[in-house]
Amino acid sequence: MHLTRFTDYSIRVLIYLAAKGEERSTINEIASTFNISRNHLMKVVQELSQKNYVTAIRGKHGGLLLTRDPASIRLGGLVREMEHDMSLVECFHEDNACIITPACRLQPILNDALSAFFTALDRYTLADLLGNQQPQLAKLMRIPTVSA
Amino acid sequence: MHLTRFTDYSIRVLIYLAAKGEERSTINEIASTFNISRNHLMKVVQELSQKNYVTAIRGKHGGLLLTRDPASIRLGGLVREMEHDMSLVECFHEDNACIITPACRLQPILNDALSAFFTALDRYTLADLLGNQQPQLAKLMRIPTVSA
Repeated sequence: MHLTRFTDYSIRVLIYLAAKGEERSTINEIASTFNISRNHLMKVVQELSQKNYVTAIRGKHGGLLLTRDPASIRLGGLVREMEHDMSLVECFHEDNACIITPACRLQPILNDALSAFFTALDRYTLADLLGNQQPQLAKLMRIPTVSA
Repeated sequence: MHLTRFTDYSIRVLIYLAAKGEERSTINEIASTFNISRNHLMKVVQELSQKNYVTAIRGKHGGLLLTRDPASIRLGGLVREMEHDMSLVECFHEDNACIITPACRLQPILNDALSAFFTALDRYTLADLLGNQQPQLAKLMRIPTVSA
């Protein structure tokens, strides 16, 4: 059981932006900080922007900013929005070929467990991900504006 | 987020054996019922046997039987045992290269959610997967001994 890299990277982008506070960031600096592909990160940021987590400001002094307060970004909601395919097993798919599906209770039972997963995750926000480690995180990410 | 086919198939094997009751089953009949690879299923059954869910009896009148009562097989425990890799994101891996891991709270938060997932799943047993649908399931799986 895994989350996608797409979801993983979207969490890293938000942590980066939260640690940087009101300073704008670029995709290049985030890609270089985490040593991940700039192209992949562009798609992640595009989706974070479409889903109103991130604002991309164009122009010479442009860059990325968080759209919302980190304490208002619930992690369950974020993962649900970024994780495109929550089909835990074959019977969740439209092209399911498992012959016992009409009488099997696996799907509702797994949905119950999935719901418990997201309820637990929704108890935390982006602010909790940083906790009181914000200065230490900024240092690890070499964010000059915070450690200066 | 997905469970592996390995886990999915292990659940199907246990449902089949539970619906069949005290009659022995063969890998061939389960593979043909679910239209899945016999080779893949052999590995699944081998692991179910190693983990004491299934007993394989050799010989002419041999076959597979459930080792335990379906009402005593908790689904959280089963999925935990069959799902080999529960590394939700990169920082769960030994070769993790994410530079913020020393100060980041993602791992404990995701572990909390994972724990809620398994606690919810452990409220159900193999017997709950069949519920009162056992005759219907046996019919869908064309198990003659039950529908006779």
